Amino acid sequence: MKIYRVNMSNLSFTQEEVPEEWRLLGGRGLTSAIVAKEVDPTCNPLGSKNKLVFAPGLFAGTMVANSGRLSVGAKSPLTGGIKESNAGGTAAQRFAKLGVKALIVEGIPEEDKWYCIHVHKDGVEIKEETELLGKGNYEVIHTMTARYGENTGVMTIGQAGEYKLSTANISVKDPKGHIRSAGRGGLGAVMGSKRIKFITLDDNDGAGIEMKDKEKFKDAARIFNKALLEHPVSGDALPKYGTNVLVNILNEAGGLPTKNFRMGRFDGAEKICGEKMYDTIVSRNGDPTHGCHVGCIIRCSQTYNDKDGKYLTAGFEYETIWGFGAGCLVDDLDIIARIDQMCDDIGLDTIDTAGTMMVAMEAGLLPWGDGEGIIKFVEEIKEGSHLGRILGNGPNFTGKAFGVTRIPTVKGQTIPAYDPRAVKGIGVTYATTTMGADHTAGYAVATNILKVGGNIDPLNKEGQIELSRNLQIATASIDSSGLCLFVAFAVLDSEPASHAIIDMVNAQYGTNWSVEDWFDLGRSVLKTEIAFNKAAGFTSKDDRLPEFVAESIPPHDAVWDITNEELDQVLQF
Amino acid sequence: MKIYRVNMSNLSFTQEEVPEEWRLLGGRGLTSAIVAKEVDPTCNPLGSKNKLVFAPGLFAGTMVANSGRLSVGAKSPLTGGIKESNAGGTAAQRFAKLGVKALIVEGIPEEDKWYCIHVHKDGVEIKEETELLGKGNYEVIHTMTARYGENTGVMTIGQAGEYKLSTANISVKDPKGHIRSAGRGGLGAVMGSKRIKFITLDDNDGAGIEMKDKEKFKDAARIFNKALLEHPVSGDALPKYGTNVLVNILNEAGGLPTKNFRMGRFDGAEKICGEKMYDTIVSRNGDPTHGCHVGCIIRCSQTYNDKDGKYLTAGFEYETIWGFGAGCLVDDLDIIARIDQMCDDIGLDTIDTAGTMMVAMEAGLLPWGDGEGIIKFVEEIKEGSHLGRILGNGPNFTGKAFGVTRIPTVKGQTIPAYDPRAVKGIGVTYATTTMGADHTAGYAVATNILKVGGNIDPLNKEGQIELSRNLQIATASIDSSGLCLFVAFAVLDSEPASHAIIDMVNAQYGTNWSVEDWFDLGRSVLKTEIAFNKAAGFTSKDDRLPEFVAESIPPHDAVWDITNEELDQVLQF
Repeated sequence: MKIYRVNMSNLSFTQEEVPEEWRLLGGRGLTSAIVAKEVDPTCNPLGSKNKLVFAPGLFAGTMVANSGRLSVGAKSPLTGGIKESNAGGTAAQRFAKLGVKALIVEGIPEEDKWYCIHVHKDGVEIKEETELLGKGNYEVIHTMTARYGENTGVMTIGQAGEYKLSTANISVKDPKGHIRSAGRGGLGAVMGSKRIKFITLDDNDGAGIEMKDKEKFKDAARIFNKALLEHPVSGDALPKYGTNVLVNILNEAGGLPTKNFRMGRFDGAEKICGEKMYDTIVSRNGDPTHGCHVGCIIRCSQTYNDKDGKYLTAGFEYETIWGFGAGCLVDDLDIIARIDQMCDDIGLDTIDTAGTMMVAMEAGLLPWGDGEGIIKFVEEIKEGSHLGRILGNGPNFTGKAFGVTRIPTVKGQTIPAYDPRAVKGIGVTYATTTMGADHTAGYAVATNILKVGGNIDPLNKEGQIELSRNLQIATASIDSSGLCLFVAFAVLDSEPASHAIIDMVNAQYGTNWSVEDWFDLGRSVLKTEIAFNKAAGFTSKDDRLPEFVAESIPPHDAVWDITNEELDQVLQF
Repeated sequence: MKIYRVNMSNLSFTQEEVPEEWRLLGGRGLTSAIVAKEVDPTCNPLGSKNKLVFAPGLFAGTMVANSGRLSVGAKSPLTGGIKESNAGGTAAQRFAKLGVKALIVEGIPEEDKWYCIHVHKDGVEIKEETELLGKGNYEVIHTMTARYGENTGVMTIGQAGEYKLSTANISVKDPKGHIRSAGRGGLGAVMGSKRIKFITLDDNDGAGIEMKDKEKFKDAARIFNKALLEHPVSGDALPKYGTNVLVNILNEAGGLPTKNFRMGRFDGAEKICGEKMYDTIVSRNGDPTHGCHVGCIIRCSQTYNDKDGKYLTAGFEYETIWGFGAGCLVDDLDIIARIDQMCDDIGLDTIDTAGTMMVAMEAGLLPWGDGEGIIKFVEEIKEGSHLGRILGNGPNFTGKAFGVTRIPTVKGQTIPAYDPRAVKGIGVTYATTTMGADHTAGYAVATNILKVGGNIDPLNKEGQIELSRNLQIATASIDSSGLCLFVAFAVLDSEPASHAIIDMVNAQYGTNWSVEDWFDLGRSVLKTEIAFNKAAGFTSKDDRLPEFVAESIPPHDAVWDITNEELDQVLQF
């Protein structure tokens, strides 16, 4: 395995050995280690001192299911802290097949030009790009697929990334040519600051990964894959309804944040829920279930067609549907699908864009429930108008522009689709994760609501600190493996599945890890990230929910009763 | 003396005794003590938990010269830290004559209405305001003067404050009905968030201040006043040329930041310098010298007329002329005067607006040197257009909107008119003051360039830490007295003047202070502010200059060579 390094300041490429300290890291563990080692924590995220790091996980390129997540890391222009955002799609497996453990992009071009990067077995080519500037992600992916073939991996930014907006994401081509996104934290803006429109990956004749004990790995992977298929969440609910199965579940639990976190139930829930979405997809000859990368057996993605049966969007997630739906009081799934399609194409994180629209509605720029108005506003972002420059920089920015103080963010990043007062464990994660509000950083919804990995009352503060801490540690390990987070349902409930992970590490890398070593990996990733954030100027004051959580939320009149002192214990380990 | 307290949440007024702990505080010392005691440091500056505090200084209402500065304090929406901004004008003396030591405004109205406040001897009236909404500060002042008479004090916000923009200031009527501003840190936005368009002050039949020993005070004040008139800066340069005497001085020193801090000399300096300004004013029948409050004997203000001899602006300061002039490469004093007039009327801090225009020029929104373009952009702010909402929130905000990273701020506040590399002592102050970049917080230019209070080479790091520390302490004391900072030239150079201050404190308050007690006041003010900022989440990482100071600046090729470790020692005492 090797490291590819690109310096945009002088348009140079170098290939490096993998230092021993990075050998047993992958995914988030590796991007965070590289960012922490090489990036000045106080630097401007859009300046020449920031670096953008792409890394497949520890298991990328192997035959274990759901191991194709790609991690992207940098200092975030949205939060100002360290950021790892991961995505499905085909890029991680291409990197693995090329034997590339990480691609590090540093510097900023001196000339006012844009570039594209082509990654292949012999290294990297940096070429000036003019043709696709100003174009959306779909056009980039289609053009590159036509140029290099179906198997080409593509990572690209839309107009949002070109404008260096803080909610710009990096899109990754999936096996069907649709879009998966490293969505959060404005990593697309970092790519835009380095003047890279897209990166293509050709893995032909790649050196591939190393594997110490193939048979042992295969045995463990079989056990692991079986556990995924047998678990009711990853084997049944997610394949059928996708993540949007959660609308009804959270609405029932009174934790579906409605009208910018004023209520926990949405009158229009049944019009946007997973069951409704499934029926709609089937009736329009869409595809209700496919995987975002080769080897995915959970297959929570789908293809959502419009009324005429024409492709509209894919990877249509619960958090997107919640945000533009319940969050903004829009109860029309077709409109939300159009918004999702636009965000994918422009390269905008849907959660932060939804949070921004809630703030725009608070400001009176749009009436609540005005889905067509949201579409017009997303169009403004695409055009780079002055309003678009405001909206594209997220909820805090929009709030400041228009004097709004009810802003649903932590560390500048929008709180996702689970109310922190009605699902307290996830509230603890939002407040304390190194990433800014992020449900995927310690998904306590599993144990609070889905009763996976135990059963902790979502409305009671008891046990939530420990739950969030343990999940944040376990998640940092999972995010380093390249495994999809959705394997965690099976891992939390099945001892054979959790042991299989350790067996796979040992089989692939020749280590002798115990379960404790696995969690040590997660702890060490978190410690690296916490240290970076501290050096960037973060304090415990940043580990707080917004002021409005002091209000109670119906229907349970739940209040936020976890103290700051308790929050400050979460990442003490 | 008493405290007036207004709660905008329920539109109520209370009068309170002055607690003993606040008896020997005034001005900045008092606003910072009240903000630190009563405001949650982590609150949203534009939310209901912030408070806006007005306080005259310890000597307000006495016969000592230049004692009419008004301090305004709050948590700043621009910096996120504690803020005191002070201004001349007539308000401080009205408060003193009313026997009001501080006016504290808290809460936010529940109804979507605007208000005005009338302060008089029996308390405060809160009235709904509709007529002057959307109007500029000049119209407010003229209307209120017509309504209540020439002697009425007025504190007002323009359109910028109504929009709650982070560069909005609070304007104070001066004796001629012109405008002085509590300019920095967005205090106008805090006033706007509380829905107060203006505050009028009627001091008729006020209880007045207390004075333990009138004769002793008079004797000391005479010594003090004499020292002011005899010092070459306050007795000669400032009365004749105003603060703009500094253009030629700083240009000569190579410390006049030009084109957003790229050079230390400006080719067009002679077209905008104090000497040119003086000639222009005299030739157009303007007034080259008047005081911003009754009792001012330095009289650095002036009235600048247009080519037709019609009033254009007043209080036309060096930092304004530097910012829109050298900073933006504009060499036309008439254009800069028009911008100054607009900023006064709209209620915009000129330094932060100038910093914003530099960033807009970096972004390519305006060509360098385009003064008419700046006028159009300031008009956008007045209109509250989307572009105006961006620009009005300052340089960091504008930089983020347009992806610019060369931003001349510390803690979000624009670095004023003295390059930190060519005048190192002021660089130390910019980095470390609790206020965000602020030349008035520890004006090391005095000793580095004007050779007042000693002679420390501006280009050499030697002695700058101690200089800035001592000046920051002394300034915190001066800012608490209500004395204009320009008394400091005499105080630094004349022992009788500095002793006279202590004598005046003792004469007025019956204390037995030594010089050390006077400096203890300053140290204690700074400690209060530092503690607030720390509790708000500030760390040493916030005490840093922008990345571009790593570049050397011509003509001296001066570099910033003061280390972070040295900076971290400045406020250790």
